[in-house]
Amino acid sequence: MKNIAIIYVTGTGSTGKLAEAVHAGAASVADMQAELIAIEGKDIVDGRYSNDAVFEKLNKADAIIFGTPTIMGGPSAQFKAFADATGGIWFGQGWKDKLAGGFSMSGSPSGDKLNTLQYLHILASQHGMLWVSTGGMPSFYAGKTDGYNRLGSYLGVMGQNTTPQGQPAAIDSGDALTGQEYGKRVAELALKLRES
Amino acid sequence: MKNIAIIYVTGTGSTGKLAEAVHAGAASVADMQAELIAIEGKDIVDGRYSNDAVFEKLNKADAIIFGTPTIMGGPSAQFKAFADATGGIWFGQGWKDKLAGGFSMSGSPSGDKLNTLQYLHILASQHGMLWVSTGGMPSFYAGKTDGYNRLGSYLGVMGQNTTPQGQPAAIDSGDALTGQEYGKRVAELALKLRES
Amino acid sequence: MKNIAIIYVTGTGSTGKLAEAVHAGAASVADMQAELIAIEGKDIVDGRYSNDAVFEKLNKADAIIFGTPTIMGGPSAQFKAFADATGGIWFGQGWKDKLAGGFSMSGSPSGDKLNTLQYLHILASQHGMLWVSTGGMPSFYAGKTDGYNRLGSYLGVMGQNTTPQGQPAAIDSGDALTGQEYGKRVAELALKLRES
Amino acid sequence: MKNIAIIYVTGTGSTGKLAEAVHAGAASVADMQAELIAIEGKDIVDGRYSNDAVFEKLNKADAIIFGTPTIMGGPSAQFKAFADATGGIWFGQGWKDKLAGGFSMSGSPSGDKLNTLQYLHILASQHGMLWVSTGGMPSFYAGKTDGYNRLGSYLGVMGQNTTPQGQPAAIDSGDALTGQEYGKRVAELALKLRES
Repeated sequence: MKNIAIIYVTGTGSTGKLAEAVHAGAASVADMQAELIAIEGKDIVDGRYSNDAVFEKLNKADAIIFGTPTIMGGPSAQFKAFADATGGIWFGQGWKDKLAGGFSMSGSPSGDKLNTLQYLHILASQHGMLWVSTGGMPSFYAGKTDGYNRLGSYLGVMGQNTTPQGQPAAIDSGDALTGQEYGKRVAELALKLRES
Repeated sequence: MKNIAIIYVTGTGSTGKLAEAVHAGAASVADMQAELIAIEGKDIVDGRYSNDAVFEKLNKADAIIFGTPTIMGGPSAQFKAFADATGGIWFGQGWKDKLAGGFSMSGSPSGDKLNTLQYLHILASQHGMLWVSTGGMPSFYAGKTDGYNRLGSYLGVMGQNTTPQGQPAAIDSGDALTGQEYGKRVAELALKLRES
Repeated sequence: MKNIAIIYVTGTGSTGKLAEAVHAGAASVADMQAELIAIEGKDIVDGRYSNDAVFEKLNKADAIIFGTPTIMGGPSAQFKAFADATGGIWFGQGWKDKLAGGFSMSGSPSGDKLNTLQYLHILASQHGMLWVSTGGMPSFYAGKTDGYNRLGSYLGVMGQNTTPQGQPAAIDSGDALTGQEYGKRVAELALKLRES
Repeated sequence: MKNIAIIYVTGTGSTGKLAEAVHAGAASVADMQAELIAIEGKDIVDGRYSNDAVFEKLNKADAIIFGTPTIMGGPSAQFKAFADATGGIWFGQGWKDKLAGGFSMSGSPSGDKLNTLQYLHILASQHGMLWVSTGGMPSFYAGKTDGYNRLGSYLGVMGQNTTPQGQPAAIDSGDALTGQEYGKRVAELALKLRES
């Protein structure tokens, strides 16, 4: 049995929907335990994130998938507070050789989400982790404008917030499918990586 | 009278269509002369671009807008051959304080085009230039999925190649509009920047 | 008379030293008023930055230079909280056509500082601003390992924290010089940009 | 027995020295065959790279490490010609799940090399590969200015060209050490990744 953790921030709730899709994909893999962890505002005091139970889970995980909305062109401040709080783990390279992945959500089709995914990759690289790409061709190349990887993202999963004003958070079915496939992919690769 | 040059590479022709839109916008501005320059394969020998007449025009321009398709996640090799050939100008900082901008085209809505625009910005910054952002809100925020800046790009113009297989190159009308507005914007800002 | 604002976060104090150098350069330019504004932790509550007086100053500035340490490969969470709080201004494009610039500090010579500068450029681009590059050749090309732009940065100013353990914050003299020259450059270009 | 390929471009020869260090590290690992492949100018005609024997080797490799100088802020045009030529492999996702890594060389300590490494990661991600980070703390944090990872790079290996004018290509001993350790690391991780 191996472990995978999906740790994310959500604002309006749509990133949370994508996180659930990624989690469902990871949890569908045999011999893999998947945990969905939300970064909560109450754990950020004076701009610093602190939650020992969360870090205990992440330290034990074989793979960690990071998720955040793209706000003003990058990860949200709440996510960054979490990232900054990993400095001690980084200094001891405590997450070295774990698998890593990421997803992000914003309002427009492109919308600088690539910059957020690139940041998540930099964070993972500072930790000495191995980054898992999306691993599937966009539906565009099969002549579709919806479906799997419809936005054309290769580093990780991009979602577009299509929630109508004043309605409950919703995500595109193609983006949800992309999230599920990605969660499954990271989980399967984690099982293939021998520890010694 | 000031000068603006749009220098670009096109493969299938769709980036050329976007270049024409940017050029049309720039040429519509009074007191501004706009020139459209294609990087041609015949000028690249052994991976090195050379064309004195082109560089003479660029050296005299008040603003330069760079355009390239996004191929395998970055500017095309042909565009990069042109960029590498600017090394001598860079060493003498011959383009310092000129305005710069960029545009890119690929098949999917996102598709790593941001990475190409970020590269064009790095190229411009190595030359000591000033980078002009898109400067207009995506149509998404007005509740539309087409129209101005429909893909949600802020560094420069993104276009999506929607040419049907075997048909003449075509671009989306919203992307063409975004290109025109951007060409106009860079031209107007070039007129506002006093030389001394 | 025009205005330039340098808004920054500092942790150990070394980014503050670089901010002071940038401010000194900007303030040395005739007809330019330069203000140095620190983002303070007390203004960040529940991960959200709020300070009306600061935004009033920024809204009136002709140029804004952003500064932050690079922490875990990107801008600090405190800086990101400030950036996220500019969402309302962004939605109304209130900073459109202002000049923008940036600087960052970290422990090692390279250390992913480029990613932070690229983020600052994305933030500025979302706001419709014009980005000012460093604009000077690294001292390396004059055969030196210290002096102006010794680290080789083109998007904005990079500094390396050389503070000895337990000592007051200090920065390299070449980095300080680079900061001064950059502040002066942004201020001079702001004076050259006519408003209409 | 598994295979690792290091494919690179060198201009003045210093990137070639770093490639040799990466190769030596990979070749030192038991049960791993490491091949060093230079991209040659003769194989680039009209901006297009073609060499069937090279692609045959890459297709069989369990891991591929990409190397290029950073020229005008990105991979050299020659490297990009190679990257563009992988479009057919990409379309069939022929390199999916292989390990990937990268290194780059330029004149100054930082010098936009991060942008080149980020591009190599994007290229690898388009191919569905897994990216291996540097995985070791910079010597800076042990109070040194030379030695392992002295420049502070986490995505892949950065080297600084320290060749004196008119002398044979040379690289810094710390950069060479970083290259060796990285080659070894990618090779060891490739052995740990089960194929099914």
